[in-house]
Amino acid sequence: MTEPLATGSTIGILGGGQLGRMLAVAASRLGLRAHVYEPAANPPAADVAHRVTTASYDDAAALTAFAQSVDVVTYEFENIPTSALDLIEAIRPIRPNRRTLAISQDRVEEKGFLNAIGLATAPWAAVNDAAELESALGAIGAPAILKTTRLGYDGKGQARIMTPEDAAAALTAMSGAPAVLEGFVPFTMEISVIAARALDGQVAAFDPGENVHRDGILHTTTVPARLPPARRSDAVLIAARILNALDYVGVMGVELFVTPQGLLVNEIAPRVHNSGHWTQNGCAVDQFEQHIRAVAGWPLGDGSRHSDVTMENLIGDDIDRVPALATEAGTAIHLYGKAEARAGRKMGHINRIRPRG
Amino acid sequence: MTEPLATGSTIGILGGGQLGRMLAVAASRLGLRAHVYEPAANPPAADVAHRVTTASYDDAAALTAFAQSVDVVTYEFENIPTSALDLIEAIRPIRPNRRTLAISQDRVEEKGFLNAIGLATAPWAAVNDAAELESALGAIGAPAILKTTRLGYDGKGQARIMTPEDAAAALTAMSGAPAVLEGFVPFTMEISVIAARALDGQVAAFDPGENVHRDGILHTTTVPARLPPARRSDAVLIAARILNALDYVGVMGVELFVTPQGLLVNEIAPRVHNSGHWTQNGCAVDQFEQHIRAVAGWPLGDGSRHSDVTMENLIGDDIDRVPALATEAGTAIHLYGKAEARAGRKMGHINRIRPRG
Repeated sequence: MTEPLATGSTIGILGGGQLGRMLAVAASRLGLRAHVYEPAANPPAADVAHRVTTASYDDAAALTAFAQSVDVVTYEFENIPTSALDLIEAIRPIRPNRRTLAISQDRVEEKGFLNAIGLATAPWAAVNDAAELESALGAIGAPAILKTTRLGYDGKGQARIMTPEDAAAALTAMSGAPAVLEGFVPFTMEISVIAARALDGQVAAFDPGENVHRDGILHTTTVPARLPPARRSDAVLIAARILNALDYVGVMGVELFVTPQGLLVNEIAPRVHNSGHWTQNGCAVDQFEQHIRAVAGWPLGDGSRHSDVTMENLIGDDIDRVPALATEAGTAIHLYGKAEARAGRKMGHINRIRPRG
Repeated sequence: MTEPLATGSTIGILGGGQLGRMLAVAASRLGLRAHVYEPAANPPAADVAHRVTTASYDDAAALTAFAQSVDVVTYEFENIPTSALDLIEAIRPIRPNRRTLAISQDRVEEKGFLNAIGLATAPWAAVNDAAELESALGAIGAPAILKTTRLGYDGKGQARIMTPEDAAAALTAMSGAPAVLEGFVPFTMEISVIAARALDGQVAAFDPGENVHRDGILHTTTVPARLPPARRSDAVLIAARILNALDYVGVMGVELFVTPQGLLVNEIAPRVHNSGHWTQNGCAVDQFEQHIRAVAGWPLGDGSRHSDVTMENLIGDDIDRVPALATEAGTAIHLYGKAEARAGRKMGHINRIRPRG
């Protein structure tokens, strides 16, 4: 397919969470329909999808029917079982591509790829046993953090190693899974670049945003990030290098640490990203539409920023603040339609806009 | 109902066209679902609605089930059969209210109402026969325009009377339907005020937009309108007076003629309005969300304008310009998902944004 998808065409979206929901809305703006594939019943994306398939990722018949009913397939999360992707890819193109998915599913693959294309990361080493951990700690030093290489459905194993004495307990926390040791780096801030690459190789990036986390979850993203212009363009160039190296199609979230020595890549996400939600109220074309444009073979849109924005996530009980937020000047509310507000659950977000400073 | 509708509640929307489509998207931002009622199959709003009922407006069982499945009912067009409204209103609130619908369905009612609350219109007179037309022409003079009072499903009868000799033919064109003669007024521009009123009586208005028509269809709306500040606030105050007089809940489009003697009300539309589409890319909260907020019992949002905008409708073959428009700087595209591009059919619109002048 080289022609842009025409009005009435259908984007298949694997995953029915809030990212799928906002992708479906963006598709509608371009006259395209969304068919959402999601194992759970009544997912957020179902409210705005033209069609929903409720089936598991090992239901070959459902996956086949889904793929046949759409024109192209994309996804809102990276941990899709390989068997499902194999089945779909035999029928329809998957964008972003399989190689990127494979890299982003494995921390060792990802860091190796980033270093191989000349990008700096925090120091790291693959760790499969106690001997490798000892050797890695010798090279990297403590404090450091041990993480399982994969973020599968089995949960995310992470353990801090503040002193070498923590090593044994940290390894136990990995439950025998392959792991990676990452050195702590002293950074002044974390930023994100939300970048997009079209089918024809055109690349565009939104202005870098400055991220603040709370309890391990993104709390706010503010644009512009407080960066000197040279760092800002470094960040965008790094994102562009990653997308080009992967022959990527779609939107990618690239998290970077800002350090006195320069920018380090923290991690990449081959999808629209929470730290790009500010674009909904800061740009004429937001990250969701940019992603749909790319996977649909359209040219990228103009993502230049018309306002300064602070995005704030509404987590768990934050939803109770909505009545007050609804009357706040300059505030746009985005709720995900989730009935139950559990602790740590992303219920929505707000974008507070201000004239460009 | 005095509490704002909570996440997961459902807005019933009568009519499944592009206005219903964009209302459904706005509902999703607030965590609300849309149930669309539309006689035609595969309407634009179906792509983004949680649920769609395909049934005629005289299907009592379908209307009853629809009303019972939703929390509140609104509409995207004003010519809904009275019998359907009666049936729905016995089950769920209809917002905006029936009185406004009755007034806006009948030009004589509408002009009488506007004059009664002290607002100026073009000179007009009700015309039911040749004698009344002669008398009206004597009072108003030619040129003038004769229109049927109602815009029902039977089509829109309109006939220009350039000289008194055109009177007989114009009356014939009314096919015996009650009509109204409207005098031409020399106006410098037509503007629209998109205003909203909440359940608690709070009123807010978007900045007035300047409209240009082509072949009788809205072509562009530009904000800000080229108006002196005093006229701009006059326009907003007129809209507020109308909404308050009607105890209105929702968004209304108020079209005004700007004349050397002041503002005349051309017509009102008790719904979101084509001339308010610019708000999607000019404000943190757009007309569609403002309408949903009002009918859902939420407080109104901040509709202040962050950018200058020109909205342009894409009519019929204009859809062929989309590939070029898609690469244009500062341009946001909104397509309605209509497969067939007939002459005069609204296929989508674009909003071109610029920094505030």
